[in-house]
Amino acid sequence: MQFETAFTGRRVLITGALGFIGSNLARRLAELGAQVLAVDSLIPEYGGNLFNIAGLEDRVQVNISDVRDAHSMRYLVQGQDYLFNLAGQTSHMDSMNDPDADLEINCRAQLSILEACRKYNPAIKLVFASTRQLYGKPDYLPVDEKHLLRPVDVNGINKMAGEWYHILYNNVYGIRSCALRLTNTYGPRMRIKDARQTFLGVWIRLVVEGKPFEVWEGHQLRDFTFVDDAVEAFLLAAVSEDSNGEIFNLGGESVVSLKELADLVVEMNGGGEYLTRSYPADRKRIDIGDYYADFGRVHSTLGWQPRTNLREGLRQTLEFYREHLAKYL
Amino acid sequence: MQFETAFTGRRVLITGALGFIGSNLARRLAELGAQVLAVDSLIPEYGGNLFNIAGLEDRVQVNISDVRDAHSMRYLVQGQDYLFNLAGQTSHMDSMNDPDADLEINCRAQLSILEACRKYNPAIKLVFASTRQLYGKPDYLPVDEKHLLRPVDVNGINKMAGEWYHILYNNVYGIRSCALRLTNTYGPRMRIKDARQTFLGVWIRLVVEGKPFEVWEGHQLRDFTFVDDAVEAFLLAAVSEDSNGEIFNLGGESVVSLKELADLVVEMNGGGEYLTRSYPADRKRIDIGDYYADFGRVHSTLGWQPRTNLREGLRQTLEFYREHLAKYL
Repeated sequence: MQFETAFTGRRVLITGALGFIGSNLARRLAELGAQVLAVDSLIPEYGGNLFNIAGLEDRVQVNISDVRDAHSMRYLVQGQDYLFNLAGQTSHMDSMNDPDADLEINCRAQLSILEACRKYNPAIKLVFASTRQLYGKPDYLPVDEKHLLRPVDVNGINKMAGEWYHILYNNVYGIRSCALRLTNTYGPRMRIKDARQTFLGVWIRLVVEGKPFEVWEGHQLRDFTFVDDAVEAFLLAAVSEDSNGEIFNLGGESVVSLKELADLVVEMNGGGEYLTRSYPADRKRIDIGDYYADFGRVHSTLGWQPRTNLREGLRQTLEFYREHLAKYL
Repeated sequence: MQFETAFTGRRVLITGALGFIGSNLARRLAELGAQVLAVDSLIPEYGGNLFNIAGLEDRVQVNISDVRDAHSMRYLVQGQDYLFNLAGQTSHMDSMNDPDADLEINCRAQLSILEACRKYNPAIKLVFASTRQLYGKPDYLPVDEKHLLRPVDVNGINKMAGEWYHILYNNVYGIRSCALRLTNTYGPRMRIKDARQTFLGVWIRLVVEGKPFEVWEGHQLRDFTFVDDAVEAFLLAAVSEDSNGEIFNLGGESVVSLKELADLVVEMNGGGEYLTRSYPADRKRIDIGDYYADFGRVHSTLGWQPRTNLREGLRQTLEFYREHLAKYL
């Protein structure tokens, strides 16, 4: 791995660092010897959870603040070598119910972070956590980066703007920046309390609790990235100069239907049950059908590919939540 | 024209109604017997100018307010049959110098207008003024609506979000809405004080004043829509149900280089001169090269096509500013 030594002693700011992917990234960077500044707002509805960095307290500096607070962000970006920009409102339904809050976090805060970098730390390198949600309902599969963007919810529109601010600041001001369009990411430390981050979190919680979970429809095809693989993509993107100004899809090592995934969850849990039902009306209208990514671009440019298969990823995930369930309820 | 009687007695709200296209639209709608509510903030740096509706004062109701003022907009959308949503920050350079103001106007205000429609007037029909700026530097010419969006300035990113909020509210909530991606629009009542709206405004002012104007490079190809044609597109889009949820490029009846355009301006003015210079550095980095639109989609769906050629359009424009120059300085 080209990043094994690249982060040693380097100063790294992670926004959303107490959340799912952010905390896994913080752990990995601490292992690699980076000085991690972990910024998170700990808003209860979002993904932040102090337990996510349990055991790491002496190696990661935690700073509770909100990316909407332009003043604190202006200070915090200074002196950092890398900014992994993961803070975001991720719930599609919340974005429809409170579009303004979604805009503040996913648009305005992103622009103010980039302005802070431009003014106070133009040598920083940013990696932005974007999302497949930007594509909307695919015209073709697998979806590559040439696919049109047709977001189907407010969250997708605002993330689209947030992503493009990063590309623009790279192209116009030379603030090195790139974006990863994440597909369904799963693994230890994801939010399982509700479906705000991913439906799979709710499945995992219920199956671990010995309760039936719900599968909506079940025929939809999806790809899933295990969080360790997603973390590797962030690190590769950070250290490469070939990523500057670029957008990359992440993807999964296989494509499964939701029903196949549900069966695998039950199998890996050593038991469990689920119910199949049709879409609730409020989800149906923003449903995107099948989705899976072509991740050839990140493979050829950065050498990334998913390494953890779904069985192994689910095994690790279930093991984590069997042990730590109470910390995530 | 299918709209000749469609607007008689109908209530029409125009945002940015004292600006260039908005005021031409207000004039046409007043002729067609609509009850026009003309909303504009009259911010000096933008396009609003009370003289733009001179002579129309008794047929158009003017309401000075800012689209960022969610409270006034919430009231003003009520009871309207149509909303022509043209208020916007249009200056590319201003959007780079004050990205937050651009975001407030082109993103947040659009979202709050749509929320107001959803809550207080879901039967309204909206037509949104979008822009070719969303495409960035074209991959191919002419540019159709399948071209990727790759905005090259903050304005383009925010307009992209603003456009998609409209499409989303159509698709998810059934608030009938569509967007026109305007190319260079020109004609009487455009801003000529500076290049905030269009470079051609500055050319027209200088040539009418008998001063030399500046052509940057000169080889770039562009298309131009005369404002009366743009107005027709807004009206056609408003009355058609086939436009709902759709995005249409407008275009010009011909494609010219900026040097050819400059020569034509001088010819139609009966004299004048211009200097050719290279791009200023701050413009060069957001330059998009050649652009012209494929407007086949709006032609086949709504029957629109540009009717006024560049000679005739420039003739009318020059005549207007020779008569009214003082009102636009």
